[in-house]
Amino acid sequence: MSMRGGIDLGGTKIQAVVVDAEGKPLGDARGPTPHARGPQEVAAAMAAVMREAASAAGADAGSLAGVGVGSPGEVDSESGTVSNVVNILDWSGPFPLGETLASEIGVPVAIANDVQVATEAEATLGAGTDYSSLLGVFWGTGVGGGIVLDGKPWVGRGAAGEIGHVVVRRGGARCPCGRRGCMEAYAGRAAMEARARRRAGQGERTVLFEIMEERGRDRLASGVWARALAHGDTLAQDLIERAVKALGAGVGSAVNLLDVEAVVIGGGLGLRFGEPMVDRIRAAMMRHVFSDERPPVVRLAALGDLGGAIGGALRAPTGGG
Amino acid sequence: MSMRGGIDLGGTKIQAVVVDAEGKPLGDARGPTPHARGPQEVAAAMAAVMREAASAAGADAGSLAGVGVGSPGEVDSESGTVSNVVNILDWSGPFPLGETLASEIGVPVAIANDVQVATEAEATLGAGTDYSSLLGVFWGTGVGGGIVLDGKPWVGRGAAGEIGHVVVRRGGARCPCGRRGCMEAYAGRAAMEARARRRAGQGERTVLFEIMEERGRDRLASGVWARALAHGDTLAQDLIERAVKALGAGVGSAVNLLDVEAVVIGGGLGLRFGEPMVDRIRAAMMRHVFSDERPPVVRLAALGDLGGAIGGALRAPTGGG
Repeated sequence: MSMRGGIDLGGTKIQAVVVDAEGKPLGDARGPTPHARGPQEVAAAMAAVMREAASAAGADAGSLAGVGVGSPGEVDSESGTVSNVVNILDWSGPFPLGETLASEIGVPVAIANDVQVATEAEATLGAGTDYSSLLGVFWGTGVGGGIVLDGKPWVGRGAAGEIGHVVVRRGGARCPCGRRGCMEAYAGRAAMEARARRRAGQGERTVLFEIMEERGRDRLASGVWARALAHGDTLAQDLIERAVKALGAGVGSAVNLLDVEAVVIGGGLGLRFGEPMVDRIRAAMMRHVFSDERPPVVRLAALGDLGGAIGGALRAPTGGG
Repeated sequence: MSMRGGIDLGGTKIQAVVVDAEGKPLGDARGPTPHARGPQEVAAAMAAVMREAASAAGADAGSLAGVGVGSPGEVDSESGTVSNVVNILDWSGPFPLGETLASEIGVPVAIANDVQVATEAEATLGAGTDYSSLLGVFWGTGVGGGIVLDGKPWVGRGAAGEIGHVVVRRGGARCPCGRRGCMEAYAGRAAMEARARRRAGQGERTVLFEIMEERGRDRLASGVWARALAHGDTLAQDLIERAVKALGAGVGSAVNLLDVEAVVIGGGLGLRFGEPMVDRIRAAMMRHVFSDERPPVVRLAALGDLGGAIGGALRAPTGGG
């Protein structure tokens, strides 16, 4: 048996997948993150979604060689503990996620950073397979980044890849992190939503919040933005344009520093907007790339929503299988 | 014999050094760069300064194991050719600097990028010896950068480390490179001088240009800035403050991406202003560092003016020695 499981733990949903030895998905499942009920309940929900994905692959979760998790927050891969998961209740101190899941599922479990494993999945099996160095940019609620150099992840002392907090305008907009001028202060979905609410509150016309309510959402999810753009909503257009310019500056800066061969754009907003938005980000980036006769290729993430879970599976311990 | 020679080719001066097997300087020399006379004359002047440094070390240049050069412009290390050296007349196309110097001096010659070898020298023998990952920031006419990760230089496809062109203010000041908002547009000596001339031309009071003339210079060299600051010149203070903020944002962005252990500040302005300015840059950087509970150390370059030449020597071919 060389099937492995992977889980992507998000603030709103849990995505699980079972892959074969080559990383090809054999079955997957997803469920909501019980974010209002603490880490123990979240771990139980993760195990349940993992079992469901195993069933979809015609297997028993207990027969998997191992399970790997891409987790938000601060991950200690050695101990399998995770702390400071901001979107889940009561998850600030370290919680033994690896141990808890291993005992729930009955197989060895490895825990790693969500953005890093998603980057590795794109590098190994997705849009980055032709390149030995790449930057992954995950454009969603925040903007996460992952770096692969010479075929290997570069994580620094554990905190590398924070492209969302690359400065694009010194002294500029306040970021959810509390600092000023970060790329995420312009491009993160959370920051964009806060600004949209402020401008709507000041009387600016927009269909964003009508669409949100029609769709029964309480936040401006990526689909809401996409629909508002399709309606020609000028506030949505303006905020997206601002986000694209910030992404271009931040990615351009990273390219000037690292001279990677490829940039892969993923994340909720990146995947939702797709190729046309990748083209706009590329154009915005080119205004800042110093060695412009040989820019990196800029591509849409190829593994879609499953990328994070597949990346988790790539980190699954297989010694016990 | 295991003495090696190193040459740092600058736009205004040529610095040469002879080092022992451990990289310790045994003798050095410097001379002006004949920048108005083309690459052939520059190569001849480099050979002359190298011979002088060898004499100072009590040796003959022809007895060196090899010579390594840190060169500006676009360096092709394999062929030993250099092109696009912007501050030297008639040096746009490729010139066989390695071959020419090897035949002038009579020993094997290697050519590498000036900022990269200066970073390696600091990493190996200077302020960065305790760290396996570091960012070198060379604050002078422009702002150059070099990256060492896991003890090895990271050059990307040859163009990595361009920290001077990391964006600090999207849509901001015009950079000498033609783009907008680069760190160098605020912190590079050339950009600072252009702005000082503009503001003085608009009637703003400053002693910068008096000091320049008193000292027989035709540009605002680092010593001119230092003297103007000592005079309490408000224009100089203002432009240096602006440069420090830009350096802080650019270096902070790089730290957020790379999570290096150390940042080493060198270059003409960096060395001239010394530790107190390093403290100001560190403080400006901290405003932007995301993982602020574990920032990198920020240190002044330890090899001073000789760093580039020593870095060149570290790249000298020694097979023939």
